[in-house]
Amino acid sequence: MATINRNYDKLEGGYLFSEIVRRTKVFQEKHPGVILLRLGIGNTTEALTPSIIKGLQIGVAKLADPKTYTGYGDEQGDIRLRSAFVDWYKKRGIKLTTSEIFISDGAKPDSANIQSIFGEKSIIAISDPAYPVYVDAAIIGGRKVVYMSCTKENGFIPSLPNEKVDIMYICSPNNPTGAVATKKQLQLFVDYARAHKAIIIFDAAYSEYISDPDLPKSIYEIPGAKTCAIEINSFSKWAGFTGVRLGWTVVPLDLIVEGTEKGKVNSLWNRRQITMFNGASNIAQVGGLAVLSAQGQKECEELIVYYMKNAGIIKNGLVKIGLKVFGGENAPYIWLKTPNDLSSWEFFDKLLNESHVVGTPGSGFGPCGEGYLRLSAFGHREDIERAVKSIEKNLKL
Amino acid sequence: MATINRNYDKLEGGYLFSEIVRRTKVFQEKHPGVILLRLGIGNTTEALTPSIIKGLQIGVAKLADPKTYTGYGDEQGDIRLRSAFVDWYKKRGIKLTTSEIFISDGAKPDSANIQSIFGEKSIIAISDPAYPVYVDAAIIGGRKVVYMSCTKENGFIPSLPNEKVDIMYICSPNNPTGAVATKKQLQLFVDYARAHKAIIIFDAAYSEYISDPDLPKSIYEIPGAKTCAIEINSFSKWAGFTGVRLGWTVVPLDLIVEGTEKGKVNSLWNRRQITMFNGASNIAQVGGLAVLSAQGQKECEELIVYYMKNAGIIKNGLVKIGLKVFGGENAPYIWLKTPNDLSSWEFFDKLLNESHVVGTPGSGFGPCGEGYLRLSAFGHREDIERAVKSIEKNLKL
Repeated sequence: MATINRNYDKLEGGYLFSEIVRRTKVFQEKHPGVILLRLGIGNTTEALTPSIIKGLQIGVAKLADPKTYTGYGDEQGDIRLRSAFVDWYKKRGIKLTTSEIFISDGAKPDSANIQSIFGEKSIIAISDPAYPVYVDAAIIGGRKVVYMSCTKENGFIPSLPNEKVDIMYICSPNNPTGAVATKKQLQLFVDYARAHKAIIIFDAAYSEYISDPDLPKSIYEIPGAKTCAIEINSFSKWAGFTGVRLGWTVVPLDLIVEGTEKGKVNSLWNRRQITMFNGASNIAQVGGLAVLSAQGQKECEELIVYYMKNAGIIKNGLVKIGLKVFGGENAPYIWLKTPNDLSSWEFFDKLLNESHVVGTPGSGFGPCGEGYLRLSAFGHREDIERAVKSIEKNLKL
Repeated sequence: MATINRNYDKLEGGYLFSEIVRRTKVFQEKHPGVILLRLGIGNTTEALTPSIIKGLQIGVAKLADPKTYTGYGDEQGDIRLRSAFVDWYKKRGIKLTTSEIFISDGAKPDSANIQSIFGEKSIIAISDPAYPVYVDAAIIGGRKVVYMSCTKENGFIPSLPNEKVDIMYICSPNNPTGAVATKKQLQLFVDYARAHKAIIIFDAAYSEYISDPDLPKSIYEIPGAKTCAIEINSFSKWAGFTGVRLGWTVVPLDLIVEGTEKGKVNSLWNRRQITMFNGASNIAQVGGLAVLSAQGQKECEELIVYYMKNAGIIKNGLVKIGLKVFGGENAPYIWLKTPNDLSSWEFFDKLLNESHVVGTPGSGFGPCGEGYLRLSAFGHREDIERAVKSIEKNLKL
């Protein structure tokens, strides 16, 4: 007799973004004429840049000719793309080899699935608030979660866990708070991980949004990190690949889990991926190669400047009407304190009803997110301006 | 202190196809001049057809314009693609709704990951031999596996399991044996599943290779299957999408797991996918829509005719020299009995050394595969002809 995985019953009602979609739909049905301004889901809106489009077109054209057609690709992903990453990291002072880089179809699947190569009794420390995927994956896998509080008192950078943990998720620049950890702050986590033989899962999906040269874009800028940290990254927010689907994960060969040989975790992840994944789309991978070209990087930088200008517009508009905001400087997210002690969902509804703006309730990211709302800088300029104006004009404070 | 998932240690030495790559590499290094003829991995070789290429190009072009650009797509996959599938199934007499269809990045991830929504004590029945992913996923997840023997005596269609099981994998047309289950044979499994409240995972990745109109292409052609069967399928072998990555999984709303409400399994798979997957590439999905167009289907049929002519050439060549072969009639795989009671790997090495042909050892698919070798019909015509000639001429029987 088949049974179900009862861990699913322990998950929160719906996946956060599905619930936003549902509430927005209900509002839209009640007010069919109203144009909604969506700053909720962090979904890119701008066209891919010319050299990336050209890369993708080349990727497609290759498949039209039996001489250049390819089916299943290299294990771990196209070797040219992995080599390009070795160079890319090298320019940042980080030495990696192609066998330490795994091309993925995005940061989300990897940041969830990575847990499965670790022991099922692993205690997982997760920032609170955090991207819901880390917690949900832990719950589905039956693993214990410990929260690391992020509050305005600690600048939304988590303090070290109070109890012993085995795996720690750190996302910097942070989704949802927009906070970025300094080298010193990350060093504390690396030191903790080494002292307690724990593993850091570093989600760097927003690394390219950092403009402050003193802030670290990779965990491997921190001495000792290669022995204890896995880094997950994505082309989604960097190059607009949210729909194209491409990312990468670094599992250093130096990474150690007590009682296993060096390189074991790298080989476990390889085994997981060759068994349960069949590579990212070869078209997307040619596109990724275009992103990593000099011209591609330049174009993507302009894309990021565009979104970060949006962030500035949102931030300034909210500050002007007296709201308290965080983030939005080296990250595409603005973390907004709700006025008058409203709960996150109360303020979500208020913002939707009064300003027709869709945000993301902070409480959906964890208990410490209660009383906050996330606004995303991903949007067309005119929509961002319209949203900010509508908040300024219509939100009753 | 971090630990690893020790279930990985219980897996066979390497993933089968990696071991083939390794042995082939060793041979190539010893014999640098020799051109190898690869009939091992079932990897498509022919160019995508014109209307599919056009579809993919449209998919890319859309991303170049902010008006048509899309990021994250619909939950469960592009609604147009799912609607097209509803029509496609309808023409085969199968009634489904869009909410029962989940677009994936291929059959492999889904056929592995689907286990995770079921109880961890589930006993999983798997054909022997079978595509290694089913067993590997079960072992990694700590689930018990029961084999259902496929031998020449039962025409390589498994008998019902001897003990009570909870989940049964059936792959028809079969990889690796090329055998196809009749409606009557599938009915036995559906009846068993209903009587024992078990679930069937039906891997239909080669369904489009069936030319015999009496053979079922979908498990849902069998009365009662909707209450007990999940069907997994793929564009890989049908349209040449092995590298493009696109597939789909059907989880009927009528599917029942004892003690849960109707639709529960469908909603669990949805929750799993929105949490741990972020959709197939939007470019690939536009390509998939082109496959499902009338012209696309016609072109893909021709592609299949091409590969099946390869299968005929291999089969005839092997029969001519007195080898015993199975499959290759409604499936792109030829299942070859090794001569002189050689083991699968012995014959793999012999074929490689004497004929320079790379096959896949049957034993890599399970204990009952011992003494067999799989040859794949995926290859350019000239390579297939060269391989068959080389076997005819050089294999010492």
